[in-house]
Amino acid sequence: MKTIPYEEMFSQFHRVLTATGFDGDDTDTLARVFADNSRDGVPSHGLNRFPGFIRDVQSGRVDLAARAAPVAALGAMEQWDGHRGPGVLNGMASMGRAIELARQYTVGAVALRNTSHWMRAGAYGMLAADAGCIGICWTNTSRLMPPYGGLDKRLGNNPLVMAIPRPDGDHVLLDMAMTQFSGGRMGIHARTGEPFPVPGGYDRDGQLTTDAGAIERALPIGHWKGSGLALCLDLVAALLSGGQTTTQISRQDNEAGVSQVYLAFDLSRLGEAESIAASVQDTLTELASGEALPGEQVTWPGQRSAGKGRAALRDGVPVEWEFWGEVLAL
Amino acid sequence: MKTIPYEEMFSQFHRVLTATGFDGDDTDTLARVFADNSRDGVPSHGLNRFPGFIRDVQSGRVDLAARAAPVAALGAMEQWDGHRGPGVLNGMASMGRAIELARQYTVGAVALRNTSHWMRAGAYGMLAADAGCIGICWTNTSRLMPPYGGLDKRLGNNPLVMAIPRPDGDHVLLDMAMTQFSGGRMGIHARTGEPFPVPGGYDRDGQLTTDAGAIERALPIGHWKGSGLALCLDLVAALLSGGQTTTQISRQDNEAGVSQVYLAFDLSRLGEAESIAASVQDTLTELASGEALPGEQVTWPGQRSAGKGRAALRDGVPVEWEFWGEVLAL
Repeated sequence: MKTIPYEEMFSQFHRVLTATGFDGDDTDTLARVFADNSRDGVPSHGLNRFPGFIRDVQSGRVDLAARAAPVAALGAMEQWDGHRGPGVLNGMASMGRAIELARQYTVGAVALRNTSHWMRAGAYGMLAADAGCIGICWTNTSRLMPPYGGLDKRLGNNPLVMAIPRPDGDHVLLDMAMTQFSGGRMGIHARTGEPFPVPGGYDRDGQLTTDAGAIERALPIGHWKGSGLALCLDLVAALLSGGQTTTQISRQDNEAGVSQVYLAFDLSRLGEAESIAASVQDTLTELASGEALPGEQVTWPGQRSAGKGRAALRDGVPVEWEFWGEVLAL
Repeated sequence: MKTIPYEEMFSQFHRVLTATGFDGDDTDTLARVFADNSRDGVPSHGLNRFPGFIRDVQSGRVDLAARAAPVAALGAMEQWDGHRGPGVLNGMASMGRAIELARQYTVGAVALRNTSHWMRAGAYGMLAADAGCIGICWTNTSRLMPPYGGLDKRLGNNPLVMAIPRPDGDHVLLDMAMTQFSGGRMGIHARTGEPFPVPGGYDRDGQLTTDAGAIERALPIGHWKGSGLALCLDLVAALLSGGQTTTQISRQDNEAGVSQVYLAFDLSRLGEAESIAASVQDTLTELASGEALPGEQVTWPGQRSAGKGRAALRDGVPVEWEFWGEVLAL
């Protein structure tokens, strides 16, 4: 796969965003988050999604001028309204405010309603971890998967993030949708025909299959467990933010006005930095100390993407030329 | 299966607890939680576990006289130490305090270290939901499952709870361990030979199997996803509480001194009760409106256990006679 220097990707995104009407820090933030997402191995929410984001702004589906703003200050938690502005900017502002609240109250929460797609969920966990905080956040989505025991899509895949800071910046970063495979990965495997390592859903005969192209219904992780977790994440996000549930989102023409929760915990108020880092390292070392299956490697969440990020900064960011050409032409 | 009236089960538990040395409200709370757990269809953490709990208290493994107490008040969050007292009492006190903090700060958090087994995780979510709060809590455990790609147990199954209140008390209640099946259910299926509906782990040849008796390694829900979630829940519980990680717990002779997180969100500060209830009901109605698979029924988390609870109050609590006889003899 061809590669592009990170700085060149950032610059091209910056140029297009400026031409689209963004300015100042917003342009920097958007260009950086989209470039970081590709750098870390999530091009589905980086380069590949960038032209679609620009189209959404140009069409007004995402409101260029709207920004998330507080609606209610309720102690250690605040409700914010995203006004259907850019989801990345809304998300960064919301986790940023949750971190500020955590500095004051140890735990800080922002519940954001009425926002648009935040691209890579992990970006907001990284923001918290870079600030020395544990970050937990999730979003609801439109209907993407059937509940356990059902045929019809009723649940979002509602990605959930947990981030735990490490001093070297290689944070523990869990970023998982409630379907066994993300929509992006489903699409890639359906195109290439490469089988999944484990079943990703049900085929038309109701059998679990590793053939992405044959999947009619996405599989919730752990069957009834991921199904139940998706439902709860949806309800909590909607109730805390006063925003839309997956059911309500899905009554619209397209996925807009989603609900999100951002939690930060300030570790600097909870113990010595060295002792905290030692406890995390002890766990990660023990995790890696067990015997691995043949051909496998035991990793912690975020380890592979951190490695990809380092490689991309050194060797360039891998790009699918089709999408890169689309950006150059914008 | 034979049944016992709920009040009789409560009374017998109360008698044995009093004879063991508990008094006052503690006796009521313990008897009620153990009886409720059996009533709601979780006898593995109710009647069946009660004799073992009494033995743990008599042997001093659980400290009869110790109670959880605050260590640090940090705004909307507090650190508590469980002093290896009874996990049920420590858990009820911790979620109780998280609810109080949520009344003041909208979100309240208690991180509890050094506690003992809390029996049914869902009990603490129910406490929050009965108080009109969203409750989220989890615990770490000793090593019970291998990480994705590994052969050796390195992760706890770290049960996670999310509870969302409903006005009629039939709360949405997710209570899930990170293994596909709980230890209790593994044991039951291994004894009866009844196959699991989905694979529960790997056999000695490394193949996924529905035969509980053949399982050598428990399966994390969603493979790498449940594996990663278990790791993160463990680290967050240990770091927030200043307590032990799964790795540290497993260096002891037995599972003691676990770490837990209790979060409460006071919905009464976040909107009109009727509007909140309507939003939840809308989602549950839509969930049930989809087509079900042949022989299946789509339910929301907690629906089945609520039904079992009602039936048990009406018809008696189902008991395995062996365990009931053991209690009568105590």
